Amino acid sequence: MDLKEEKLESQEIYKGRIVNLYVDKVKCPNGHISTREVVRHCKASCVIAELPNGKFIMEKQFRYPYDDVITEFPAGKCDGDEDPIVTARRELEEETGYKANTIVYLGKMYPSCAYTDEIIYLYYAKDLEKTSQHLDENEALKLEEMSIEEIEKMADQGKLDDAKTICALYYYKNKILNK
Amino acid sequence: MDLKEEKLESQEIYKGRIVNLYVDKVKCPNGHISTREVVRHCKASCVIAELPNGKFIMEKQFRYPYDDVITEFPAGKCDGDEDPIVTARRELEEETGYKANTIVYLGKMYPSCAYTDEIIYLYYAKDLEKTSQHLDENEALKLEEMSIEEIEKMADQGKLDDAKTICALYYYKNKILNK
Repeated sequence: MDLKEEKLESQEIYKGRIVNLYVDKVKCPNGHISTREVVRHCKASCVIAELPNGKFIMEKQFRYPYDDVITEFPAGKCDGDEDPIVTARRELEEETGYKANTIVYLGKMYPSCAYTDEIIYLYYAKDLEKTSQHLDENEALKLEEMSIEEIEKMADQGKLDDAKTICALYYYKNKILNK
Repeated sequence: MDLKEEKLESQEIYKGRIVNLYVDKVKCPNGHISTREVVRHCKASCVIAELPNGKFIMEKQFRYPYDDVITEFPAGKCDGDEDPIVTARRELEEETGYKANTIVYLGKMYPSCAYTDEIIYLYYAKDLEKTSQHLDENEALKLEEMSIEEIEKMADQGKLDDAKTICALYYYKNKILNK
């Protein structure tokens, strides 16, 4: 069975700072014509970073779409063609004030594959060295140190909702902790 | 430290079939004015469904934003105010032709909290009973049965990219398998 859809036309609806929106006309495998609403977004990186004390760096940030403060691993968008591992090191240092002397690729994830093309690359960082935090002008976040048990307890209690954080945790457990 | 941003204005950019796009003006905690691009999307459900033979139902679907066939657990959007557990049962049966006689809530996830408000609710289903598949007119998918070891191997090899699938797998392992 062929599953592929063929792009016939693409209409740009909005070009923004973070997202671009397109409505495309496609030919489905059954020959029917349909539309696809696609949010195009740059790549991003997320880092589960282990401190010398064995705890992990978490960030609490207000996330406007949910009107709530969310607990996440450090993350950020790739600048242009930046290699995601460079993004991971840069965002970790800018947001937390820690430089990673060791960084390991864990995997990647597609946040919501029906309508956005974003890819988030997941890394594990260790051998952290204190430098200094450099937040963007309008960036506000609180840092916390948590043990893996505390992070897993948050998940168990339904308080760890951020997808990249859960995915990084999954990969950390499989590829680092239980190796 | 106060992290909350205050909404000042909201401009509707696009109202679509799947996504609505808004550009809002907000007051940041530091008093500065900034904009937030927000994709508003309905709720959705995703199901890790265990067959009587101990394998799990996977779907291969063409996902237009990635121009690729993605392997995922069955999932779908809530119809209006539909309870996500009803969505989970309905989508599982429509897409796979299996009715779940037991379904357990695992957790929820926020796909990409910086710009979309989507929430995906994650469930584990068992005691499956064969009924019949009812795909939407333009829906095309291939079903596969995979063991948990095969699914984890896919993740290990970087072939399991869908975030809701990785998150459901994380919760299944923590809340069902290792309980």
